[in-house]
Amino acid sequence: MSNIKYVYFFGDGSAEGNADMKNLLGGKGANLAEMTNLGMPVPPGITITAEVCTYYNKNNQYPEGLKETVEKGLTRIEKMMGKRFGDPKDPLLLSVRSGARVSMPGMMDTVLNLGLNDQTVQGLIEKTSNKRFGFDSYRRFIQMYSNVVMGMKGEHLEAVLDALKQKKGVGLDTELDAEDLEGLIPVYKAKVKEITGKDFPEDPVDQMWGGIDAVFGSWNIERAVFYRKLNNIPEDWGTAVNIMSMVFGNTGEKSGTGVAFTRDPATGERRFYGEFLKNAQGEDVVAGIRTPQTIDHLEKHFPQCYKELTEIYQKLENHYRDMQDIEFTIQEGKLWMLQCRVGKRTGFASFRIAVDMVEEGLITKEEALLRVEPNQLNQLLRPIFDLTSKKDALNNNRGLAKGLNAGPGAATGRIAFSAETAIEWKKQGEKVLLVRIETSPEDIGGMNASEGVLTARGGMTSHAALVARQMGKVCVAGCDALDINYGTKEMKVNGQTLKEGDYISIDGTTGEVIEGEVKTIPSEVLQVLVHKTMKPEESETYQKFVELMDWADEKRTLKIRTNADQPDQCEMARSFGAEGIGLCRTEHMFFEGDRIDAVREMILSDDLKGRKKALDKLLPMQKGDFKAIFRVMEGLPATIRLLDPPLHEFLPHTDDEIQGLARQMGVSFDHLKAKKDHLHEFNPMLGHRGCRLGILYPEITEMQVRAIIESVCELKKEGVRVEPEIMVPLVGHVNELKAQREVIDRICEKVFEEQGIQVDYQVGTMIELPRAALTADKIAQEADFFSFGTNDLTQTTFGLSRDDAGKFLPFYLENELLQVDPFVSLDQEGVGELVKIGIQKGRSTKPSLKVGICGEHGGDPSSVEFCHRQNMNYVSCSPFRVPIARLAAAQAVLR
Amino acid sequence: MSNIKYVYFFGDGSAEGNADMKNLLGGKGANLAEMTNLGMPVPPGITITAEVCTYYNKNNQYPEGLKETVEKGLTRIEKMMGKRFGDPKDPLLLSVRSGARVSMPGMMDTVLNLGLNDQTVQGLIEKTSNKRFGFDSYRRFIQMYSNVVMGMKGEHLEAVLDALKQKKGVGLDTELDAEDLEGLIPVYKAKVKEITGKDFPEDPVDQMWGGIDAVFGSWNIERAVFYRKLNNIPEDWGTAVNIMSMVFGNTGEKSGTGVAFTRDPATGERRFYGEFLKNAQGEDVVAGIRTPQTIDHLEKHFPQCYKELTEIYQKLENHYRDMQDIEFTIQEGKLWMLQCRVGKRTGFASFRIAVDMVEEGLITKEEALLRVEPNQLNQLLRPIFDLTSKKDALNNNRGLAKGLNAGPGAATGRIAFSAETAIEWKKQGEKVLLVRIETSPEDIGGMNASEGVLTARGGMTSHAALVARQMGKVCVAGCDALDINYGTKEMKVNGQTLKEGDYISIDGTTGEVIEGEVKTIPSEVLQVLVHKTMKPEESETYQKFVELMDWADEKRTLKIRTNADQPDQCEMARSFGAEGIGLCRTEHMFFEGDRIDAVREMILSDDLKGRKKALDKLLPMQKGDFKAIFRVMEGLPATIRLLDPPLHEFLPHTDDEIQGLARQMGVSFDHLKAKKDHLHEFNPMLGHRGCRLGILYPEITEMQVRAIIESVCELKKEGVRVEPEIMVPLVGHVNELKAQREVIDRICEKVFEEQGIQVDYQVGTMIELPRAALTADKIAQEADFFSFGTNDLTQTTFGLSRDDAGKFLPFYLENELLQVDPFVSLDQEGVGELVKIGIQKGRSTKPSLKVGICGEHGGDPSSVEFCHRQNMNYVSCSPFRVPIARLAAAQAVLR
Repeated sequence: MSNIKYVYFFGDGSAEGNADMKNLLGGKGANLAEMTNLGMPVPPGITITAEVCTYYNKNNQYPEGLKETVEKGLTRIEKMMGKRFGDPKDPLLLSVRSGARVSMPGMMDTVLNLGLNDQTVQGLIEKTSNKRFGFDSYRRFIQMYSNVVMGMKGEHLEAVLDALKQKKGVGLDTELDAEDLEGLIPVYKAKVKEITGKDFPEDPVDQMWGGIDAVFGSWNIERAVFYRKLNNIPEDWGTAVNIMSMVFGNTGEKSGTGVAFTRDPATGERRFYGEFLKNAQGEDVVAGIRTPQTIDHLEKHFPQCYKELTEIYQKLENHYRDMQDIEFTIQEGKLWMLQCRVGKRTGFASFRIAVDMVEEGLITKEEALLRVEPNQLNQLLRPIFDLTSKKDALNNNRGLAKGLNAGPGAATGRIAFSAETAIEWKKQGEKVLLVRIETSPEDIGGMNASEGVLTARGGMTSHAALVARQMGKVCVAGCDALDINYGTKEMKVNGQTLKEGDYISIDGTTGEVIEGEVKTIPSEVLQVLVHKTMKPEESETYQKFVELMDWADEKRTLKIRTNADQPDQCEMARSFGAEGIGLCRTEHMFFEGDRIDAVREMILSDDLKGRKKALDKLLPMQKGDFKAIFRVMEGLPATIRLLDPPLHEFLPHTDDEIQGLARQMGVSFDHLKAKKDHLHEFNPMLGHRGCRLGILYPEITEMQVRAIIESVCELKKEGVRVEPEIMVPLVGHVNELKAQREVIDRICEKVFEEQGIQVDYQVGTMIELPRAALTADKIAQEADFFSFGTNDLTQTTFGLSRDDAGKFLPFYLENELLQVDPFVSLDQEGVGELVKIGIQKGRSTKPSLKVGICGEHGGDPSSVEFCHRQNMNYVSCSPFRVPIARLAAAQAVLR
Repeated sequence: MSNIKYVYFFGDGSAEGNADMKNLLGGKGANLAEMTNLGMPVPPGITITAEVCTYYNKNNQYPEGLKETVEKGLTRIEKMMGKRFGDPKDPLLLSVRSGARVSMPGMMDTVLNLGLNDQTVQGLIEKTSNKRFGFDSYRRFIQMYSNVVMGMKGEHLEAVLDALKQKKGVGLDTELDAEDLEGLIPVYKAKVKEITGKDFPEDPVDQMWGGIDAVFGSWNIERAVFYRKLNNIPEDWGTAVNIMSMVFGNTGEKSGTGVAFTRDPATGERRFYGEFLKNAQGEDVVAGIRTPQTIDHLEKHFPQCYKELTEIYQKLENHYRDMQDIEFTIQEGKLWMLQCRVGKRTGFASFRIAVDMVEEGLITKEEALLRVEPNQLNQLLRPIFDLTSKKDALNNNRGLAKGLNAGPGAATGRIAFSAETAIEWKKQGEKVLLVRIETSPEDIGGMNASEGVLTARGGMTSHAALVARQMGKVCVAGCDALDINYGTKEMKVNGQTLKEGDYISIDGTTGEVIEGEVKTIPSEVLQVLVHKTMKPEESETYQKFVELMDWADEKRTLKIRTNADQPDQCEMARSFGAEGIGLCRTEHMFFEGDRIDAVREMILSDDLKGRKKALDKLLPMQKGDFKAIFRVMEGLPATIRLLDPPLHEFLPHTDDEIQGLARQMGVSFDHLKAKKDHLHEFNPMLGHRGCRLGILYPEITEMQVRAIIESVCELKKEGVRVEPEIMVPLVGHVNELKAQREVIDRICEKVFEEQGIQVDYQVGTMIELPRAALTADKIAQEADFFSFGTNDLTQTTFGLSRDDAGKFLPFYLENELLQVDPFVSLDQEGVGELVKIGIQKGRSTKPSLKVGICGEHGGDPSSVEFCHRQNMNYVSCSPFRVPIARLAAAQAVLR
């Protein structure tokens, strides 16, 4: 690495890096450089590149020459600040912070006030004339350093502090005076020695390198690894380290610190939005230990700084052309910018900001489309509380308190006071709300397992709020009224005591906390689109949603269809913008009402005659289903898949049911039982299913095709136009499709003759077996269309049963043998290769072959992008995922 | 088809076709043309091409102009023979015979004596001065024509004939005189009218076209379709039709007919071998109705003809450079050649003739290698009767009779008197011997289901003998002593009565028929190679076998390994020429003796400690296994596959067993039962198996690797060199192999350190999942070798569970949705495509990557050829298939 630059300087109006160097400098380092170059007041510092992190974690040592370069950088900082690191008279103090390519809030380590020891603390006190500040900084440094760098649990020193506060009879740290804090120092150091067996380091340079080691090392701590997995962040990105001159927001009443967003991160509203704490260090705001004041208090206390900050935030938003999340500190009346980055936001805020910024002329429609993570649109469809039910609850005195509306939506669940409990209960199928005094990075797993998060302390930018927003979880933060006791596992609020396991409801849009369960209703978008209980003009959210979707539709070339089996599902999907049915599974209809009896009779008949008799009963039912669906899908294509699952899936399970069926069919119990046993399969996934059913029992195909085509003919007579596509499942060899196509064409001709009318129809196949993809050139000879069934294709390509993978797939994901669950996001390397081969071969035979996908991947944004790149004609997904797919398809064009 | 020539003439020393035109003229037509061109006495005739058959069966009519061309050909025949078709004074008579590209013995239809009616029969009588012959020919014609062309069952006219014989008190047809036969004609015709409702055609031209229609139509009759399926003959080949001037072997004592082979078709011995019947038509010999005399009788009765025939057969063998099967007729002392073709032969004869012909300088070694169908070598390994057991049986008066040794080998089974019974019993798992008076094409299915075939009538070239030889079935034919009664389902022989279902034994090498079961012992080749109970010089078969194998080894480039799990299997495979182990399945060892208890304990342990304790018990056992195997395989590579099957396969099934295991492990029954239930899988084939076991439980891999490597190290100290290849199963993603490779390398290093010695080893993987083949470039980074596990690869690529396919795969094969069972012969189009991709990608990463196959396809000749074409390094198959693979690999080079 000898020729590689691994330390970048910034300070006093010019920097070696800039905002484009995020991959190398991390987000924080790149933006510090950019702000410096923009002439904003940034304390000087250096950034050690993320490449060093990767090198360090691989080789367990630093690249040659790094030490010297860092120390050279330190000298520049000293020169610029006019102070020396370790100077007992006027010491330069440093912060060491992580900063990866993407923000990982609270995930990784930070050490502040580096450079303090028994000598330099005196110089600090002298220079600031503030003994309390000096020793407060020193004891904070020991607390932080012993924890982050020396690996000691925070609770040990907290216990020392608590003991002191108790002895002095005070409640808050701020009530301790300078002498109290001075007295803490030797006690702290002794405790560190006792617990870690090591002396607390006095040499500032040792302290600095300890900090750097710790930050680089923190890339691999468990919670960071978990977070990256959750957010698909590659392991090899690494983090940069930023070493900056310290500025202090806690030197007294002329100082303070804050974080702010250039727009509301929960709702997307265009207003300067943030929080501020006087006489505090930045960590106090983020950690949620004290609940801060809103940003307008800054204007009152520091009008000049507020003015300057306003100019800066506007400049930043215009410069970056996106909503910014900024951190600042005021030291003795002077404003310092410590960080800026693209602000995390809820799905609501995300799409609203994107739409607004287009209207403001700040970004283009294309940019807006790329700004919204398609999966976030889910939030617009998520339930909200039913107003009547909520009013009832409040009237019945079940309203408990109000906190900050940190993550919109409605959530109900049992109280869990710890992440472990939340995870455990979730596993047992319970809905859980995680209730914490404050959350910390250790709680991520528990937050993920919960319906929503409720905290007693912390603001809109607290850990809980930030992470919940990003996860799309409902969150009410900083609800001071809660008095939580982890020991007794209960909390007191509004005069009541709630125990762990009790039901509670939170409204993340209003901040309300309510006892018990509250009924939920559909979101605004759903109310307008599906339920028609709200008019479009009543919902701003709906209007902006439609605007964004319209832009997406203008851009995308992929058609979006839906997987739906029932008329109501079809109707919903259409209202979400579905342009057809990509997969209608006929077997779902077989279970409805008492038709399952006819199905079972068909399966268990001994001969063709018996099967036909049963199928005759099913025909009018299937026809009714299809007619209803076709009516809804008027003018659009609808793909109907012929019967797919192995027949034993339809059979009765208990002896009682078999007995009943035997009576009905007029055969003996033993006979039916034997037939059922005969149908047993060792690997039903690879058994007698799909087109193998229709081939051995063509009468089933005949009935289904008749039901489809009679429906279409009859609707045509009514003037309803339908584009039926009959899909043969599980084809592995062209002869299978050929055989089924013969049956289909024969029945269609017959129906046309009977009905005296002709209709258009297509016959195609699922490509869901590797062999189908590999021989797609042959299969295309018999197919009008291909639909990639990527669920089964994933199962066969990986040799992985979805039903059984639970025994090892989670382990694979945790241990990074696989980066993503291939059932969630298409495995482009393996399964995707087959999709490519299938399309290429299929179109080599039939260039105009219509190709789509109908596995669950059809609603996964990265899979949609893949489908676009493969020149598919459409993707098909569940109704709720249609908007996601529309946006993802547009993004695919733009990328 | 207007420009296509579809009728070829032959006769009088020159022909329009020749032997190279088999595809068009069929084997019979091409060889008739060739013999004509060679100046041999062939009755003149025409061949209508097989293309016409395809056209006729597709369009249900003949191509334009065919009628005229055929009639023109007829005129040429008339001119050459100096007779006219239908001439009441001196009629030309014709035969109409099928003749496809390959011989389908007895499968298809023939009509003789065409052209006879009430007028022409008088001309025939006048010209031959033989009234009996005339009416015998006429009544035979009516019998044959009414059956073949008019679709009437033969039994009706047979009954008429039998009634007449009874009335006259005679036993044989030949005892009926001219008047008897004359009297039969009107009765026959009346019966035909009664049964078919149609008049028997009198017009010779109508008769001829009826015959042609029937032959072309017979391509599609059931038994022909079945035969083609059995022998992989494509449906679209069709048959040609040969129309020839009739010659008669039944005009009296100066006439006769025969069939002969230029070498012995059962043993391959070099001697003129055949059968002859005086005063008979050719069909009498083949149909097995009369048992003929051996060919040397011809020399006695027709010395001049015998001399001429000897010259012809030698000329033919030299000309065709292969053993020929010839048919001839002597009419009034003149020899006519009616057919010649390559003679069908047993596996024994096949390889012996090939080796002999090389020694005689007739063919090259390369040709010899291509002459033997590799699967036929199986016959050399098939059991023969134990001499002591057979002697005992004979001494105890269990010897019943002696017939013709028509199909070598030993077979024991229950007597079945009908094909249906044989098929039915075979399905029930019984061993069956089909015992028939004579067999006919309808019996093929039953012959296939039987261990062997025994007939009371018919010679070495009878239907039973021909078909049994080709199927490789043991056969004793023409055992006159049998008195079979289909009605009572019993047979009398040697004073005893045997019932259907009784056990019987036949020795196809000696012709002996023995009551009850006789013990079998290994074949000569096995006795020399494996059992050492015979010396090489004692077995000519063995010597010729070794010679052929040596030639094969000189040619082939593929290495042949074996799939073997036990030392004795390995030893046998080595003696068959295996050059290493391609697949040693370690799980088979897990079931042995009481080690299954330790395996179960390992599986059912709750924690690592418990599993390790159980694995510690298994280690010495596995090590013992490996050491024994490695010792046998000294100097050769041995691939050991790590544990593969899902763990539940090892679990106890009954509650009693679970109870016992619970006691042994000191846990409760309920606990174990619950664990067992927890391990249940819906699709075990796609479940927690293969490397997924070693990844979740690395301790299993550790134990197995330790057992392997400690064995190799200890053997090295003894001076025994081994090349271990550790194979990781069911890899789908490179990370899986990487993870297992880390464990393997770590344990190996550890063992090297402990043992103070280093050994070479390789780590590779099965490619048995589509994803592995598709990402082989990545996987090759971690692999020293690939072994294609085509069993599982076939299952996943087709989405076809071997255990469940029985419900539909037979239907697929019967209905030609699939041409061959993909588990028997590699599906080159689909699965083979993945093999190609896997090799190409794997070698793109690692050009020297060693690649083999270890699925059951490794012993299938066409799959071996495929592997050769893909430049694999080796194929691996079960020990008994090693010789087959050696030969197939040589053939692959030669093709």
